[in-house]
Amino acid sequence: MKMDNPAPTSSPARAALDAGHRVELGHETPLKLDCGAELGPFRMAYRTYGTLNADRSNAILVCHALTGDQHPVDPPHSRKAGWWSLMIGPGKPLDTDHYFIVCANVLGGCSGTEGPPEIRRDTGEPWGLDFPVITIADMVRAQVMLLDHLGIEKLFCVIGGSMGAMQALQFASAYPERTFAAVPIAGAARHSAQNIAFHEVGRQAIMADPDWQGGDYMKAGTAPRRGLAVARMAAHITYLSEAALHRKFGRSLQDRKSVTYGFDADFQVESYLRHQGSTFVDRFDANAYLYITRAMDYFDLVSEHGGVLAEAFRDTPVRFCVISFTSDWLFPTPESREVVHALNAAAADVSFCEIESDKGHDAFLLDEPELFAVLRGFLQGCAEHRGLGR
Amino acid sequence: MKMDNPAPTSSPARAALDAGHRVELGHETPLKLDCGAELGPFRMAYRTYGTLNADRSNAILVCHALTGDQHPVDPPHSRKAGWWSLMIGPGKPLDTDHYFIVCANVLGGCSGTEGPPEIRRDTGEPWGLDFPVITIADMVRAQVMLLDHLGIEKLFCVIGGSMGAMQALQFASAYPERTFAAVPIAGAARHSAQNIAFHEVGRQAIMADPDWQGGDYMKAGTAPRRGLAVARMAAHITYLSEAALHRKFGRSLQDRKSVTYGFDADFQVESYLRHQGSTFVDRFDANAYLYITRAMDYFDLVSEHGGVLAEAFRDTPVRFCVISFTSDWLFPTPESREVVHALNAAAADVSFCEIESDKGHDAFLLDEPELFAVLRGFLQGCAEHRGLGR
Repeated sequence: MKMDNPAPTSSPARAALDAGHRVELGHETPLKLDCGAELGPFRMAYRTYGTLNADRSNAILVCHALTGDQHPVDPPHSRKAGWWSLMIGPGKPLDTDHYFIVCANVLGGCSGTEGPPEIRRDTGEPWGLDFPVITIADMVRAQVMLLDHLGIEKLFCVIGGSMGAMQALQFASAYPERTFAAVPIAGAARHSAQNIAFHEVGRQAIMADPDWQGGDYMKAGTAPRRGLAVARMAAHITYLSEAALHRKFGRSLQDRKSVTYGFDADFQVESYLRHQGSTFVDRFDANAYLYITRAMDYFDLVSEHGGVLAEAFRDTPVRFCVISFTSDWLFPTPESREVVHALNAAAADVSFCEIESDKGHDAFLLDEPELFAVLRGFLQGCAEHRGLGR
Repeated sequence: MKMDNPAPTSSPARAALDAGHRVELGHETPLKLDCGAELGPFRMAYRTYGTLNADRSNAILVCHALTGDQHPVDPPHSRKAGWWSLMIGPGKPLDTDHYFIVCANVLGGCSGTEGPPEIRRDTGEPWGLDFPVITIADMVRAQVMLLDHLGIEKLFCVIGGSMGAMQALQFASAYPERTFAAVPIAGAARHSAQNIAFHEVGRQAIMADPDWQGGDYMKAGTAPRRGLAVARMAAHITYLSEAALHRKFGRSLQDRKSVTYGFDADFQVESYLRHQGSTFVDRFDANAYLYITRAMDYFDLVSEHGGVLAEAFRDTPVRFCVISFTSDWLFPTPESREVVHALNAAAADVSFCEIESDKGHDAFLLDEPELFAVLRGFLQGCAEHRGLGR
């Protein structure tokens, strides 16, 4: 099949593109956004792993979370493994010996897909806050345009954790004919008040930083590093469980026998958080953080279907596997159960698994054997029904 | 008994003193702090309610939480009720017809007691970061010096919620002969890793604000308002429960029928949080926030007693009533249970009550009839044993 060549980019995320592809979509028909604006042409950066089979029936769309990217495996210029390298590869649950994996940077992101830090074709300036506010549905529309471009009429599966789960649910709801299966992990059909509140703290931290410059920091040659680091620190706490923080750090001190009676990082958990904040700002754009958190806040499949979530999936042919984790307090199990109840009410084919884990929300990115086992089983069953001949 | 006259203050919290008293303590014997420094003389701002009886046996020391002050009832210059006006007053659980209530602003605070925003007597400049880092034990030492000044040899009860609970536990542990009873509400014997992490986010938000000026903002005539507001917003989420946020706000929009596709406060919960942040900076000092959060982080009655919490209360004559709330995720019930188990192991007289509430940590400040009933019962029983003749 045709693959686009890696294209040069004018964004700060140039390095992130090296091992990926970038395509311009929406030349003829622009992307109609929920806000009313139209976007086109727009750039979409993506990676693929494995081989598309002859009848193009083995594609799995992997949707990334808030701060993820199109590199779940083998990220360029990084000594770190990709964010789902445990999940994707030969012999792994998303087995690249059998499946063709597509993973794109989301619309509004900062790893090469059109978003706030990208240079506008019309003005030669970064989008900044002139980028239209996008939604999860817009992200999914862009993904579908990418699938059209790749010649993939129907996915075998759409899968993702956290915001990726929102995309998987949105995809299955809006394009039921375009995927055989959907796996939303650690997600929800609508963002909760508490989660909106945490996102708002992060946005306020960014916008409070004078170096944010009203969103025009790229033109000013600055970046709201301190504000973005604080946003990341606050968010990072929500990704872990109290038990995981206790197990990892407890009240252990940082290389010292006693506290220092000062405001340096005395406790290991402080040092860890500071590190999370400072490394994040090297890989993420502050405006993209505003846009993507906003998209998550706006996500509400319930109200979009008249308050009846089952209507989002009425007569769906998609097979669902909904997964949650016991210690996830950001997207707790009741929010996955709400999805499952709606799917049951819609007479959908749905499996539900709540996985016992003390790792919190981040469990979907970590070594969770039960998660892998559940996914292997579900995908194998789907492959048999789909006639994929594994 | 002798009462100090309201004294003028040079701190930004001048107004907060108007209805209270301020005394200078530590003239002859300075306060020896855990960090090794000595403080003296130092100012202590406090309020009293009710009347001390002839044998000085009816005093209750009320210890305030992180952002509380010495005005639980009738705060000056405020249209708002005090933070414990439901709890303290004639006929209320802390009945001012029977008890003499003492409430002091904590050491390191910003309502008139010696702390970072106060003007140093020696230099005529604000303390700022030159104020010594203090601990919960230091706060309690200062409270005991105030009780000495007031001629109160032994309290009837020491009581407080959250950081007030830490002080109540510390007081009972360090001065068992100086109180008949102790009531730690929604507290813990040591600050958890997750709570240290949230405090660190708040401190980083403050210190990231250029207007913090390395702590010297008072000299510079500025204040880190944006950073302090972000710190307050993040903290405020932890004071509520997910259920309370959902009940109060859910995903309700702010005076609008649909979202605005922008970064203004679309959701009511965002507007509420922004309001919490912006009003907080008018009443609280950023450096005091650093110092008091640090004191809470350092609190660890377990490690200070060789890892055996029961040793903190060995052979204690104090009667305890430990209270927690089901939906409090900042100081969850297991942390109160740890205290109760230790008190049991120390053969102490202890009652424990977990109160069913969906209001989260802040329940201790709110209208919780079961809390009031439990306190009335406990205090009445103690009053009978103490021969207070109610």
